[in-house]
Amino acid sequence: MSATSQTSQQPAAVARVAPDLGPTAQSARRDLLRSHLEAAGVDAMLVTDLINLRYLTGFTGSNGALVITAAGDDRISTDGRYLTQVSEQAPDLTPIIARDCPRALIEHLTGSGARIGFEQHVVTVATHQRLIPLLTGAETLVGVSPLVEELRIVKDEHEVEQIRTACQAADLALADIIADGLLVPGRTERQVARALEWAMFERGAEAISFETIVATGANSAIPHHRPTDAELSSGDLLKIDFGAVVEGYHSDMTRTYVLETVQPWQRDIYEVVAAAQLAGREALEPGVEAVGVDAAARSIIDEAGFGEYYVHGLGHGVGLQIHEAPSIGALSTGTLPCGAAVTVEPGVYLPGRGGVRIEDTLVVRDGEPELLTTTDKTFTVI
Amino acid sequence: MSATSQTSQQPAAVARVAPDLGPTAQSARRDLLRSHLEAAGVDAMLVTDLINLRYLTGFTGSNGALVITAAGDDRISTDGRYLTQVSEQAPDLTPIIARDCPRALIEHLTGSGARIGFEQHVVTVATHQRLIPLLTGAETLVGVSPLVEELRIVKDEHEVEQIRTACQAADLALADIIADGLLVPGRTERQVARALEWAMFERGAEAISFETIVATGANSAIPHHRPTDAELSSGDLLKIDFGAVVEGYHSDMTRTYVLETVQPWQRDIYEVVAAAQLAGREALEPGVEAVGVDAAARSIIDEAGFGEYYVHGLGHGVGLQIHEAPSIGALSTGTLPCGAAVTVEPGVYLPGRGGVRIEDTLVVRDGEPELLTTTDKTFTVI
Repeated sequence: MSATSQTSQQPAAVARVAPDLGPTAQSARRDLLRSHLEAAGVDAMLVTDLINLRYLTGFTGSNGALVITAAGDDRISTDGRYLTQVSEQAPDLTPIIARDCPRALIEHLTGSGARIGFEQHVVTVATHQRLIPLLTGAETLVGVSPLVEELRIVKDEHEVEQIRTACQAADLALADIIADGLLVPGRTERQVARALEWAMFERGAEAISFETIVATGANSAIPHHRPTDAELSSGDLLKIDFGAVVEGYHSDMTRTYVLETVQPWQRDIYEVVAAAQLAGREALEPGVEAVGVDAAARSIIDEAGFGEYYVHGLGHGVGLQIHEAPSIGALSTGTLPCGAAVTVEPGVYLPGRGGVRIEDTLVVRDGEPELLTTTDKTFTVI
Repeated sequence: MSATSQTSQQPAAVARVAPDLGPTAQSARRDLLRSHLEAAGVDAMLVTDLINLRYLTGFTGSNGALVITAAGDDRISTDGRYLTQVSEQAPDLTPIIARDCPRALIEHLTGSGARIGFEQHVVTVATHQRLIPLLTGAETLVGVSPLVEELRIVKDEHEVEQIRTACQAADLALADIIADGLLVPGRTERQVARALEWAMFERGAEAISFETIVATGANSAIPHHRPTDAELSSGDLLKIDFGAVVEGYHSDMTRTYVLETVQPWQRDIYEVVAAAQLAGREALEPGVEAVGVDAAARSIIDEAGFGEYYVHGLGHGVGLQIHEAPSIGALSTGTLPCGAAVTVEPGVYLPGRGGVRIEDTLVVRDGEPELLTTTDKTFTVI
């Protein structure tokens, strides 16, 4: 792979796509960001995070930056490799072609006297030091909080459609490998993981959301076990946590099965986790405190006496990243707005014995949340 | 996948492993870094880049930091999820268990009065601002250049062995899919890419190095084409750029074939690129200027009249990252030391017609460089 890095092009269309909003959606997102500039104390905002850049423009190249101004003079910058791509993906923005994109955009603002916000959680100290001498006029650089990440919490319907399609690819892939008889004693964790990933690609995934987790027997008690050559055995708990990516959007789902023969403790912890997961899902409504959703699920596990074996938060936002805002945990702050896409994934892990996690991806809606991962999660012996 | 992120565990042993140096190699690397502290003007170095952390300690978790001190009081920090893992992977370091690892390490140095170097190309402005108030004594934070990245240029034999094994997995996988008759008209780019990735996993890869490039016909003229549903056709140039990861180390190789029937221009540009690639490989010797290696290859393409169609640098370092120091291009500075692992990958891309790139991964050695990617690269009609 050459040193000029990769050209990421628009993936092929997927089966069920909402009316393509084209640049309209991105333009609306930029306007929304623009409306927050004054409260952030800036006249313009330099966006250098590539995921935020994609969200605000549609551009998916590996080098680029964007400046949003209060006056609406938005400009994108990328280098010459992406000349064609940027005009296709962000046709409503005039690109400034340069190797050093933040520099080019700062220079574009020279003489404006603008207070230029930058993503202080993204820009490195070295880059910041490099940009400061470019301010030859009255301009200033002002570090701002993760504004775009906050906007990304609420998904528009085009985004929900991509996440839904990614969840479907994952649902179908899991059904495929079960139908193919792959979840049986003698197979290794690694073989199951590879088969599941292959099936997701066959079902339309452009990538996998994260390293697939397949954990059998005592390994299932390790929350984020990496697949090994351990063989599935009769009587094991088998925990599978995986996801697909479609048009940049991620899915996330965990299912836990028992292989062939069941012991009572396995059913016991499964039913506790299932009840907690249901309570967490039912707590999802616009405006609810994230910490309250966590508590709705956690209290059930605590009351069943397994609190010490539930060692992580209840969930997290899902979108252009597998983990994004909001977090749903015992220490989370803030509320969940309508349109947030989140996971609900409690677990109980008994060291040396086995663990159960049940996870769905959902969208917070007025009324019932929308369940995007639809694979059956009743207690199942395979 | 739960919000506490993934636990990455030591992958299973690969087929050909050099004598396991265990923590010895990492300890030697830390001592080498320590010997550079004085010249960098610091008494200690805070390492927060996770790849650098892995290089210096062996620890592969998703949250951690390290401090190296002139006095040898090195400490690692990670959170409670990685308690077992850190003691296995970095047994010679006493961990400080904390969620906020940089903070814990800075607090550990409180009262030392140390000038504490930090990676200014890694640490964000927000993190820097967060750390400054922790300096309650006479300590100072000093931004330093990419010191560890410079050390990583020279691979020790344990590292070379991992890269060699990764290259072998890639070589074998390509041979597999050719033997299976998959490089034939009618297959799509996407199918070939997926089959190649699958074969790499079967041959021991733990991951792929980067998104596999399979480009047929006119697509081969796009340097970093993403695989589509385009079908391979008789008479096409077919360019394949791919790699495997073993124990965290990457391979990188490109081969270009012609499908069934050849046109003279295809053979012409192939022979030019092959001659340039040979010249680049032959120029690799300890102490050579990187820009001179680039020129050795580039001059051949220029003299053949294809200079304007060779749009990228000649190569880059390969190791724990697919792209790392040193770069080998027309604007590169510095020399290539003995033990550097690099790619040599010239190309000629004729827009709308097709392109050829030939790429190997090699190690700079006294005398001949060591060729790690061994797949035949004579002009081949498949």
